[in-house]
Amino acid sequence: MNFEQLRALLAVVDEGTFEAAADELGVSPSAVSQRIKALETSVGNVVVRRAVPCVPTQAGSVLLRMARQVALLEAETMEALGTGGPGQAILPLAVNADSLATWFLPVLDDAAAWGDTVVRLRVEDEAHTSDLLRSGDVVGAVTAAPQRVAGCSTEKLGAIRYQPVAAPRLCELHSSAVAGKRVVDWARMPVLRYGPKDDLQNRFLREHGIEVLPPSHHIPSSEAYLAAARAGLGWGLVPEVQMEGMVADGSLEILGPRDHRDVPLYWQVWKLGSPRIERLTASVRGAAEAIIALG
Amino acid sequence: MNFEQLRALLAVVDEGTFEAAADELGVSPSAVSQRIKALETSVGNVVVRRAVPCVPTQAGSVLLRMARQVALLEAETMEALGTGGPGQAILPLAVNADSLATWFLPVLDDAAAWGDTVVRLRVEDEAHTSDLLRSGDVVGAVTAAPQRVAGCSTEKLGAIRYQPVAAPRLCELHSSAVAGKRVVDWARMPVLRYGPKDDLQNRFLREHGIEVLPPSHHIPSSEAYLAAARAGLGWGLVPEVQMEGMVADGSLEILGPRDHRDVPLYWQVWKLGSPRIERLTASVRGAAEAIIALG
Repeated sequence: MNFEQLRALLAVVDEGTFEAAADELGVSPSAVSQRIKALETSVGNVVVRRAVPCVPTQAGSVLLRMARQVALLEAETMEALGTGGPGQAILPLAVNADSLATWFLPVLDDAAAWGDTVVRLRVEDEAHTSDLLRSGDVVGAVTAAPQRVAGCSTEKLGAIRYQPVAAPRLCELHSSAVAGKRVVDWARMPVLRYGPKDDLQNRFLREHGIEVLPPSHHIPSSEAYLAAARAGLGWGLVPEVQMEGMVADGSLEILGPRDHRDVPLYWQVWKLGSPRIERLTASVRGAAEAIIALG
Repeated sequence: MNFEQLRALLAVVDEGTFEAAADELGVSPSAVSQRIKALETSVGNVVVRRAVPCVPTQAGSVLLRMARQVALLEAETMEALGTGGPGQAILPLAVNADSLATWFLPVLDDAAAWGDTVVRLRVEDEAHTSDLLRSGDVVGAVTAAPQRVAGCSTEKLGAIRYQPVAAPRLCELHSSAVAGKRVVDWARMPVLRYGPKDDLQNRFLREHGIEVLPPSHHIPSSEAYLAAARAGLGWGLVPEVQMEGMVADGSLEILGPRDHRDVPLYWQVWKLGSPRIERLTASVRGAAEAIIALG
């Protein structure tokens, strides 16, 4: 096993094909292929399933994680030795879409000043980001689960507060005044979901005693989801931090003032004593001050 | 084969699990399971691979497409007969992220007024949306390929014009003045990619004679990609329609005034004589007037 082989594995998994990996490494596809085969011979296992995209096998996942750690340690050791070296280290990170659309953005501002780090984001549901950490796909992740992934540290970041909101026109269509109070017809008002994995609204509806769910639109983009809510396509649970001013200006109405849902978020990252990871963690922690504190 | 079985297949594939499908249909998971088994017996083939998420087999894909067409025809026939019926018909659509972030949004405004249609968007690279049409996952798609999918009509929508842009600070760092003209150091200036499938920037760089690609950050969200460009994390190809005012206010600089890239987009949709599909097509066509016309 050598560094070149591990770098080839990283590139194949990250880029998805041997050709794209060759581009990334500035070598020929057959050189990539030879390195992968040599790696497989040395560990006695197939490491990558040749598909589109290429997927690491179980043995490949174990190597992948090591490969990322070695790449980072190599870059930082070279720097400490003053030998220059590759200079750029790759930090693959997983973040949920609502975070990337809101409080996480200042991390990109910070990263712009680093110069020595390449940021590769993966967007996943916060319930699934820790899987990417476990499989060695990313070095750090914003997750919904406090359960520590082996070899990682975990800390509370805060919570995104989701408010149930709808455009006033839609509200009016699906609610009635009962004894001076507005009662929302949750069983009929159409609902916005991010996609099939998004269970936040359905759980909300079940907690309101709704058994047969109303029609649900799927809008798999944080910004488009908000736009759809404002357009009156359906009601949705929208991050409070994303809708500033929109209640005040009358484009959105909060459907129940005590009906918000707080989704706690954690930061999980490899323990590696790497200055880049420490700097990244400080940046994520600073950005998370924009969301609400967790008790 | 009956309607109930086809509806069960649709729900299992769209929701991903038998449990979520049961929720969607308002029946028990075992009822869903029985319907799928009965469907498999009647066609003599396994239709769904039981995984997380559930994936249709090849036979399942053929049925899936029919199931969506039948569901739509059923809803519209019931309406024509004045018997009310399900009322809501589901329109699964595929759209690329940059379209959803820009010109496609007014389609959601239109959809908010329809009332009889549930919109389920899938976000995919425009080179891959036609696969979703072919596999029966969606009824309509914004695609990069003019090749007609069997059973679908296709029309030109226009093109998204991408401008190579960067924050002025980054520009300055990676360009030099040669004989009064700015020369960008494409080999070194870090680049923003949407993700590993995004080849737009790499092709651009190769056309500028760059063999070894510069460090590339991955930012898989249209809005965050734009934010990263403005933050100076890297240069990127940004839809002209998305950056209005940002060149004028000095937050972004166009790197080469004649270096834009036009990505043509097509609308492909099932031929089904369905009023909902015709209305949708008119809405998409209207929204596409915001992008540049194709010759």
